Amino acid sequence: MAAGVRLIGMSAPRIRRKPERAKQTRAELDAILDASWMGTLSTIKDGLPLVVPLLYARDGDRLLLHGSTGAGAMRAAADGAPCVLSVTLLDGLVYAASLFDSSANYRSAVVPGTARRLPDDEAAEALDRFSDVLMPGRREELRGHLPKEIAATLVLELPIGDDWTAKQRTGDPGVDAQTEVWTGVLPVLTTYGEPQTAAESTVAEVSPSVQRLAGGSA
Amino acid sequence: MAAGVRLIGMSAPRIRRKPERAKQTRAELDAILDASWMGTLSTIKDGLPLVVPLLYARDGDRLLLHGSTGAGAMRAAADGAPCVLSVTLLDGLVYAASLFDSSANYRSAVVPGTARRLPDDEAAEALDRFSDVLMPGRREELRGHLPKEIAATLVLELPIGDDWTAKQRTGDPGVDAQTEVWTGVLPVLTTYGEPQTAAESTVAEVSPSVQRLAGGSA
Repeated sequence: MAAGVRLIGMSAPRIRRKPERAKQTRAELDAILDASWMGTLSTIKDGLPLVVPLLYARDGDRLLLHGSTGAGAMRAAADGAPCVLSVTLLDGLVYAASLFDSSANYRSAVVPGTARRLPDDEAAEALDRFSDVLMPGRREELRGHLPKEIAATLVLELPIGDDWTAKQRTGDPGVDAQTEVWTGVLPVLTTYGEPQTAAESTVAEVSPSVQRLAGGSA
Repeated sequence: MAAGVRLIGMSAPRIRRKPERAKQTRAELDAILDASWMGTLSTIKDGLPLVVPLLYARDGDRLLLHGSTGAGAMRAAADGAPCVLSVTLLDGLVYAASLFDSSANYRSAVVPGTARRLPDDEAAEALDRFSDVLMPGRREELRGHLPKEIAATLVLELPIGDDWTAKQRTGDPGVDAQTEVWTGVLPVLTTYGEPQTAAESTVAEVSPSVQRLAGGSA
């Protein structure tokens, strides 16, 4: 079924759930996780849901979560509370011939599990991976991490187990009662804008890593 | 503090939390909620976090959540489990002179509470509001809801209480050790693409409501 993302109606999105040991859909999960960096960490504290948005990076069979020790949800997850990392990408609005059958195209991933705080030696490596995913090439333009920086950083590892869910809806609206009205999809696109040099930047020319990233699409 | 969305480091984003009765920041919350339609509903079932992405619309002091009765998190929320609706918008990657001080510009809203399933008469009105927010003008181009459609639809109302959190980071990286390297922001933009007419569309010309929406930005 459609999870919560149908717009108004009951038309059946083309959902793909993970069959047992379906390598192909694990690849689909990875593709969704790799298409975004911003997720939502949901956990439980004192019987209430605790939620924080955060940046993440997939590293093989684990998700690296990076955040502040000041965020309650990060601390709760670090202390072993069950948690979920979820990611959603909105790809378009789907205009059907009725509001009831209108919908949205999207991709989503939900990865439940138990997180582990990485010790400093593993955290340094994880932060390298993190920066390689979010700011590819930037690491080579800067100095390495300082020990005090690593010590001040909270990095969690969330293994990608077997209970994840990946869903997507793509394509045209379903065909319902033929009304004389346009039907179709309004795509929602995510792109990079022009790099904006900081007022305090010591260099005017945009770094090569940023130029390369800006030349693609987000 | 920075919630979970700093990229690598400990630089302090310009976070705004809600002071007591600060009308201005409630306006900021509303602006964030109104800038997106895709959120994450987090709730609890059997002691575990249960999460589903969904479309929502703000209607004054309440959030309207629309989804499938097949989504466990929607059902749990409809049954009165405590829940949270969270929304995050990524606005840019913030390149500092160290990875540690690199960050992200973003806006986020977290609204906890208890949801209520709307009865049919209220659900019809809520769906109108929902479509007016997500597909402005579309309702006037289509027939109204049928009673059987309303009956088959699950609409939840989540009041915006006092415990919400709105955060944002904007602007340049913080100034740290002066390294000879470019610093600045790579904006992440969300826009509409060209409307794509469905293969089965009975009308070739894109509906006025879609043309108007596509003419703006997402």
